[in-house]
This record gives sequence, structure tokens and C-alpha cells, in this order.
Amino acid sequence: MALTHIEKLIAKAVRDYGMLAEGDRILLGASGGKDSTTLAWALSRRRRWNSPRFELEALRIVGDVPGGGMSDVQAERLAGMYAEWDIPYRTLEVPIIGRLKAGEKMSCYWCATQRRTELIRWALENGCNKIALGHHLDDILATLLMNMTKKGEIATMPPRLEYEKYPLEVIRPLALVEEDSIRGFAREQGWLATTCTCDFGADGERKEYQRRLNVLCGGTEEGKRNLYRSMSNVKDGYLA
Amino acid sequence: MALTHIEKLIAKAVRDYGMLAEGDRILLGASGGKDSTTLAWALSRRRRWNSPRFELEALRIVGDVPGGGMSDVQAERLAGMYAEWDIPYRTLEVPIIGRLKAGEKMSCYWCATQRRTELIRWALENGCNKIALGHHLDDILATLLMNMTKKGEIATMPPRLEYEKYPLEVIRPLALVEEDSIRGFAREQGWLATTCTCDFGADGERKEYQRRLNVLCGGTEEGKRNLYRSMSNVKDGYLA
Repeated sequence: MALTHIEKLIAKAVRDYGMLAEGDRILLGASGGKDSTTLAWALSRRRRWNSPRFELEALRIVGDVPGGGMSDVQAERLAGMYAEWDIPYRTLEVPIIGRLKAGEKMSCYWCATQRRTELIRWALENGCNKIALGHHLDDILATLLMNMTKKGEIATMPPRLEYEKYPLEVIRPLALVEEDSIRGFAREQGWLATTCTCDFGADGERKEYQRRLNVLCGGTEEGKRNLYRSMSNVKDGYLA
Repeated sequence: MALTHIEKLIAKAVRDYGMLAEGDRILLGASGGKDSTTLAWALSRRRRWNSPRFELEALRIVGDVPGGGMSDVQAERLAGMYAEWDIPYRTLEVPIIGRLKAGEKMSCYWCATQRRTELIRWALENGCNKIALGHHLDDILATLLMNMTKKGEIATMPPRLEYEKYPLEVIRPLALVEEDSIRGFAREQGWLATTCTCDFGADGERKEYQRRLNVLCGGTEEGKRNLYRSMSNVKDGYLA
């Protein structure tokens, strides 16, 4: 079985960061977006390798946010894809707006936190030791730039993160894959690229940082790869 | 004597990085540009403070690069300004092109390296223990972005750097000052803002990175301040 470009980059990330181990039970967050769908597809193929042996589970969090979900037809089609890939797939209804306390405002941050919390809870209750998220190279770099220019920190979403509070690890196997490759691949496959278009703002700031990332890197993949590599190349004596 | 905005930021940099010490003999590179001229002006005023006591010297490197110098009138005016500020001022002719070996091409990098080498040599021969350079906040941040996206390193020109090979330190007292402030101040003072416009390319890449810096920071000073601050805030567990 020939590996696609995306699968090769996943293989490299898995190797570089030691993301997979024998006996892993990995929970996938299945949003229906191009990123998590591509990740599920690739890991279902990877699961056929002889070593390490691991299991996959998928959970779709269904929120109560107007415009934030998918139609019944779309939902059925997504369930069908996970079935085709032989990944157990469940949905969980979560009252994301319903959990807001009086006076609190809905935000992308709140929504993401609630979804993450539910993934963690489900993983812990169902014996998963890892959660695989669909963040890709551009996500990681845009977050780096946001943290540098807004929080004054050199920090990002790491490709692999152990939770201190739980016996659980987050892995991001798409860490080395550019968004363009995923977009192109998902389009080629004819997948729905369900994007969150909820009424509370489609995370305009993150989109703006994606644009700034592209400007910073002169629109080149090489620039992005260098930017990524710089994070493992901090020259202490040459900082301000 | 009330401090200007620029002087306050220099005072902060001096304090934060311990740039000045009693008895320092500081060599200024006097290019005639807005940055080194502003720096010379500010340090000549700073020299009147009671402590620490330090001395200033200025050296202008005169190259052999067509279009890279200034007119006799400009040169005389610059000498007059340093005299007014009571800073001993000398010029040194350096065959920058003349030193190229057969087949080597002239570049901004070569020119800057030759000038730096001469400043170092002169400082060592004349008992200076520090060289003060006119790099400002935007220079430092643009260099950071260049290093990240081109060299894959998180590194920049540090505000203070001890040479390992020489008993000499480089300080950049304008490290916290935005270029806009310097440009505005130099204009207000009616100074020539002699810019290097030599025939070998006006460092277009650096200008392009200045533009990218502004895009990245959304054109805000706050963004630049955060970006600068991030360099002292590296979150090791949250990198890729």
C-alpha cells in the first residue's frame, strides 16, 4: 500500500514524537471537518500496519449552538464514513450554550473548552489513553504567532502533550501537514468539509492569523517548515 | 532636564540589561543615518547624568561603495553635530569593495561585516570597552522573524552581547524604541536621514521583513511589544 503525502508526514510525526505505542486506545474527536476526517481516514489505514497495534474510537460532540451542527443527511454520511473505516463512532449531545452561567457570553473558546472536556471525560471513562486531534501545521504556527504577539509567550499547541491531571495524552498526528494538502485531499475525496459556521463568529481572529502566517512566510512552504523547525532551535544567548 | 520618549526607553533598556557601567568608554558607529544619530544625541545627554560616568567616541566608516556615502556638505554637517554634542568624531576610509577577493560579489552582508570589523579593531586599539549600535525594536524583531522563517532558529541581535574573542561588548540602547519614534524625532530635529542607497541593493529583503513584521503585529505597537517580550518567555513544554 503506497503512502500518500499526508500519510508520510503523519509517519514522520509519529516517529519524531513517539506518538504511537503498542496497545494504545486512541479517541478521535470527529467534528466532520476536513482535518479530523482526514486524520481518521489516515489512522484507520495506519492501524493495518503490523506494529504498533492500536485501537481507534471516534466521538462526535453534538452541541446546541445554532448553525454549529450538521444536517441529518450530513451526519448520516459522516457516520457511514467512520463505519467504512471500521472505527467505532458515537455521538454525544452536550448543552454548550446551556452550560453558560448567567451573564457569561458564548465564545469559540468556551465551545472548544466544553468539547475538549467531554472528549477527556469520555476517554477516561472508556479506557482510552490518547486523544488524537486534527490540528495541522498551519494551526500550530498560527497559534505560535498568536501567543507571541498577543500573550508575549513563545508557546503553541505541542504535537504531543501529557496531561498532568489525567493518565491521558493528546497527540496531533497532522502536526507536520500543511492545511493546503489536507484541503486538497479532502476535496479530492469528495468529503464534506463541514466547517463550524455557528452564529457566534467563525473565529475571525484565527483566520486573520492564518493570513498573517502566510504573509510572514512569503507564501512558501519552506518558510513554514523553517518557522516550525525554529521552535526546536532556540538560541538562548541571542534573544532579547 | 525632561526626558523625551526615546530617552525614557533608552533608560529602561540600560536598566533592564545593565548596559552602562562606571568608566565605560563607548564607541559609536556614526553612519549619519537617523538611528545612530539619534543614539549619539541621546547618549551625549545621558552622559551628563551623575552616574555612571562614561565617555563617548564616534567613528564614521567611509567606504568605497558608489552611492553609499554622503556628500561633503552632509559629511561636514554630521561632523558639526557630533562636535556640538561634544563627542570626539573621526572618520576612517575602508576599501569595502577593494577587499573583495576575485569572484566574490558585493553584498549588504559583506559591507556590514567590514564596517563591524573596523569598529571592533578601532575600539580595541583605542581603549573602548563597548560599541553602541543604533539597532532599534523593529530591527530586532525583523531579524527575529528572518531567523525563524529563513534559518529555522529563534534568535536575534541581542540588546547586549559580550564578544568571546575580545574584551568588548556590543550594546543596543535603542532596543526598546520603535522605528517610527526615531523617524519622527529625526524629522523633527531636521536631521538628514542619510540612508544607505548604494548601488548594490538597499537591503530589500530587510525592508520586506519590516513590512511582514507590521502585518504580523496588525500594525500595533502592542503587538510588537508582546513579540519582543515573548523572547524572554519561552514555554519549553509547549513547543513543537
